[in-house]
Amino acid sequence: MKLDTERFFANGGDDLLITDFPTSTDKLYKSKKNYKKLLAENVKTLRNFQKTLYAHNRYAVLLVFQGMDASGKDGAVRHVFSGVNPQGIQVFSFKQPSSEELNHDYLWRIHTRMPERGRFGIFNRSHYEEVLIAKQNPRVIEGQRLPDEVRNRPHFWEERYQDIVQFEDYLYRNGTVILKFYLHLSYEEQRKRLLSRIDNPDKNWKFEDSDLEVRGKWDDYEALYEKCLRKTSKAVAPWYVVPADDKRNARLIISQILVNELTRLPISFPDVSDERREKLQSMREQLEA
Amino acid sequence: MKLDTERFFANGGDDLLITDFPTSTDKLYKSKKNYKKLLAENVKTLRNFQKTLYAHNRYAVLLVFQGMDASGKDGAVRHVFSGVNPQGIQVFSFKQPSSEELNHDYLWRIHTRMPERGRFGIFNRSHYEEVLIAKQNPRVIEGQRLPDEVRNRPHFWEERYQDIVQFEDYLYRNGTVILKFYLHLSYEEQRKRLLSRIDNPDKNWKFEDSDLEVRGKWDDYEALYEKCLRKTSKAVAPWYVVPADDKRNARLIISQILVNELTRLPISFPDVSDERREKLQSMREQLEA
Repeated sequence: MKLDTERFFANGGDDLLITDFPTSTDKLYKSKKNYKKLLAENVKTLRNFQKTLYAHNRYAVLLVFQGMDASGKDGAVRHVFSGVNPQGIQVFSFKQPSSEELNHDYLWRIHTRMPERGRFGIFNRSHYEEVLIAKQNPRVIEGQRLPDEVRNRPHFWEERYQDIVQFEDYLYRNGTVILKFYLHLSYEEQRKRLLSRIDNPDKNWKFEDSDLEVRGKWDDYEALYEKCLRKTSKAVAPWYVVPADDKRNARLIISQILVNELTRLPISFPDVSDERREKLQSMREQLEA
Repeated sequence: MKLDTERFFANGGDDLLITDFPTSTDKLYKSKKNYKKLLAENVKTLRNFQKTLYAHNRYAVLLVFQGMDASGKDGAVRHVFSGVNPQGIQVFSFKQPSSEELNHDYLWRIHTRMPERGRFGIFNRSHYEEVLIAKQNPRVIEGQRLPDEVRNRPHFWEERYQDIVQFEDYLYRNGTVILKFYLHLSYEEQRKRLLSRIDNPDKNWKFEDSDLEVRGKWDDYEALYEKCLRKTSKAVAPWYVVPADDKRNARLIISQILVNELTRLPISFPDVSDERREKLQSMREQLEA
């Protein structure tokens, strides 16, 4: 599949408007069959990439997925990574912090779950919840039990965006490649998907009462996402805004961004020295004897 | 014990000279008995402080101990904290990183072991080993398996000092109070202590062949410690340079710095509301019935 994925790249800064990014785009596939074929090709490339990543053993790859409820985060992870060796992938879904997590700073649960060298880490929601849910709900910040003197700092939220940028920059400088995906859904398409969660018994479990409450604050959340993109999309940890109204299209776009970005990495299977090759040959003889 | 501990505070910046700090100072105790009494008083204060810290449950306290081999880090931790409830203290000694630790960025093992709110965390050696041992020994950095493109960054070490400063600033802004102690030992006193590790069968296990190797690079290490103090002593995470040639004196100084610094913290047992007090009273009646 050929696709200029640069147009989904969010160039950070105060000029960025989330409304400049579409929630739907040209269909990249002709039929369901064609979609499967195109996705399978990219999954194969990612599978091979992961083998090399593992053998090279210097880089880790962190993929962050964020988006409104029902924007297709779970499905994207499932479909794009189902063909890749699970031994090389660690997926974490960040929900409400546990009481152990609340006993620590908000990046603690994130840092502890960072992927090891040679592996993919996938975050379904992430540290960005701090400047989304937590920023929107004073109760959530209250739950962190911060001392008053730090909670009342005048640039409290500004500092949190900076923390995140610095943290990701630090991770990059220690070998973690970071790509972030915002699944950009329209208000109308979310309505349809939430309805289908109610109508479809298989999906009932996914419907939470809070979904409607959050939907009621759509504009607030969209403004928070916009601010995230403005403040935290950097060359070393870029955000991509993926049109998410068509799930299949979204998965193709995500897989193609991964292929385009990751195959740039200077990785290869480790060189085998002449000396080592001789040693291997001698061991071959022992095994054959 | 009254002691102006401000004079041990290292005011960071390029003017700082490690040679301006003494390795020995006036004796603060008159006899061994008097030393025990003075230390016990401070330990009692710390014990009470820790109870309040635990009940208040908003701040964590991180204490970092660094210093040359045989500078008395283990002994200081043992003597100053032996009287404090171990349930409220988590001590970690950072030695050579494990293979799991090497699969992550260098702050990963540090962050994962940060103390929880309401507790003391004590680091015997710490993230500072990165800009000491690792900076001195290219082999150690090689063991981190960083990709070439990040390893060859022109300001590689400068960025690591910045990482540490930003990390500590972030921790402070999330409720962790950080105090750092450099146990400042003289070359001659180290010689005596290493000899006693050889002469005293009880201490033989502590002698490592590498101790002499490191001692051989005394000036290099002292320069690295100086650089640490210059770059990373900040108001929110200060370094104290403790004269360490007299172990008892050093412990008294450390305990007094802790008392002076920690009793400043705005913590107290949580307030009990009138409503809650009534509830407690009613439960008392049930228990008595």
